[in-house]
Amino acid sequence: MNPVSALFAASRVAFQGARGAFSEEAAMTLLGRDVTLVPRQTFETLFSSIDEEASDLILAPIENSLVGSIHRSYDLLLASSLHITAEVIIPIHHNLIGCPGATFDDVTIVHSHPVALAQCECFFAAHPHIERIASDDTAGSVAQVVQRNDPTRAAIASTRAAEVHGGRILRERLEDCAENYTRFVLLAPSPRRDERADKLSLVVKLQHQPGALYQALLPFAERTINLLKIETRPVRGSPWRYHFYLDLQASASDPEIVAALAELHSRADDVRLLGCYRSAQILTKEPQPSTR
Amino acid sequence: MNPVSALFAASRVAFQGARGAFSEEAAMTLLGRDVTLVPRQTFETLFSSIDEEASDLILAPIENSLVGSIHRSYDLLLASSLHITAEVIIPIHHNLIGCPGATFDDVTIVHSHPVALAQCECFFAAHPHIERIASDDTAGSVAQVVQRNDPTRAAIASTRAAEVHGGRILRERLEDCAENYTRFVLLAPSPRRDERADKLSLVVKLQHQPGALYQALLPFAERTINLLKIETRPVRGSPWRYHFYLDLQASASDPEIVAALAELHSRADDVRLLGCYRSAQILTKEPQPSTR
Repeated sequence: MNPVSALFAASRVAFQGARGAFSEEAAMTLLGRDVTLVPRQTFETLFSSIDEEASDLILAPIENSLVGSIHRSYDLLLASSLHITAEVIIPIHHNLIGCPGATFDDVTIVHSHPVALAQCECFFAAHPHIERIASDDTAGSVAQVVQRNDPTRAAIASTRAAEVHGGRILRERLEDCAENYTRFVLLAPSPRRDERADKLSLVVKLQHQPGALYQALLPFAERTINLLKIETRPVRGSPWRYHFYLDLQASASDPEIVAALAELHSRADDVRLLGCYRSAQILTKEPQPSTR
Repeated sequence: MNPVSALFAASRVAFQGARGAFSEEAAMTLLGRDVTLVPRQTFETLFSSIDEEASDLILAPIENSLVGSIHRSYDLLLASSLHITAEVIIPIHHNLIGCPGATFDDVTIVHSHPVALAQCECFFAAHPHIERIASDDTAGSVAQVVQRNDPTRAAIASTRAAEVHGGRILRERLEDCAENYTRFVLLAPSPRRDERADKLSLVVKLQHQPGALYQALLPFAERTINLLKIETRPVRGSPWRYHFYLDLQASASDPEIVAALAELHSRADDVRLLGCYRSAQILTKEPQPSTR
């Protein structure tokens, strides 16, 4: 059992989607196969699962290496008071999955999550007769396709989703680009101290004036703290104003970052530390079985 | 006729979607009602329309005040050699539109563009029995719904789309937030000199090292040039590396910005000026008829 899974082994972890979702695979990769997994149908019910006492932790997709940031997660994270306590990155490979009797030539309608559909644009451009239907998740689409038992319908999802729901894989590796990874964050009601933490996420609302973003980045640049990612999201009800999400290569306990954050606080309208956690490497191997 | 429409009156302008699309309304707002409008079904065919000699100009949605940036436009703009020559902002109001005989209670399936569906989340949360189907555009969904003449199906689109295609408006103002605007950019094969230009867009690829983004913003911050927007998009095939899109309040002919751009060139891997143009105000009135 790795240190992360040891810490969270007794926890219930909510993920968005049905059994066999990429999020479920990510949760098992991070926390081991013995963790209690709680499927939630939508992003809204995912983010409300701790408040509703349905889970202790939430694993949310935050970024895909092809599609970019998962804005729904950023917006719901901002609306919550949750803390990022860990992250995990998994490779994403898409399959076309039909009901047991289906063949590829039968398929005229494909169901999947909009992000999965967007990652297979070359496939749809090559098969313009196939209609795309957006659904809440990839694996749930497989469950529905198998239940309908209609060979004209298929879903785009993981190999695991086909296994879990008894679907038939009609085509493999549908994704436009083989270098396709999704990064997930583990969210908890309170921050967690991690000695090995080397990454820090925060969200900043700035004054709308020349140099505001520059002034916000200055405290980190002066101390040679690496900015890993910057993401902007519109402020609801204030057109063309933005929240800035920053990921920094830093530990919250480092005196340099403490000083930099204090400086930032004095310059920004609003600063919120989202979490300090250990950065993930790209994993290409399958989830490890727990040794417990 | 306003100066922008006078300049482009003889041009054919491609927009994404069918007749009655929000993009068509935006084109008429910017260029007047006498411009020749060329509907293109997808973002891909929109961006290829000049190369295919189907249009002289392209109007592409780039940002919505609720949903954020339209990533497909950013990615296709980067892949093209087009220049931004103008921008326009229009208010977005969504209607539920059925076939002529439909009533609200009949509707179980709603077709629309994924961005339009995402802007009406409260409506769908309140009506969980309604299935959402993603389509290439809003107005085209209305055309299909009217053609099918199936009262269980409706589309989300503009008032104009209902008029153009003969649909029946079943509900008005479906959007989650009334402050809903979309910003469009007018793209041309070559840059255009505009004496009144006060906004500059560029895209930068930076070295992956501490302070790189800070160093890129420094030339502008030192000269008190306002950064209006920063957007990051993943670099395809290089997970966790980004292109940075910057919108600056500046004219390309200003000696200060010329000096800042020269400094930026010396610090970045790659800098491309996307365009210098007159910034748009939020328009709340209907498109003006041309006086030509």
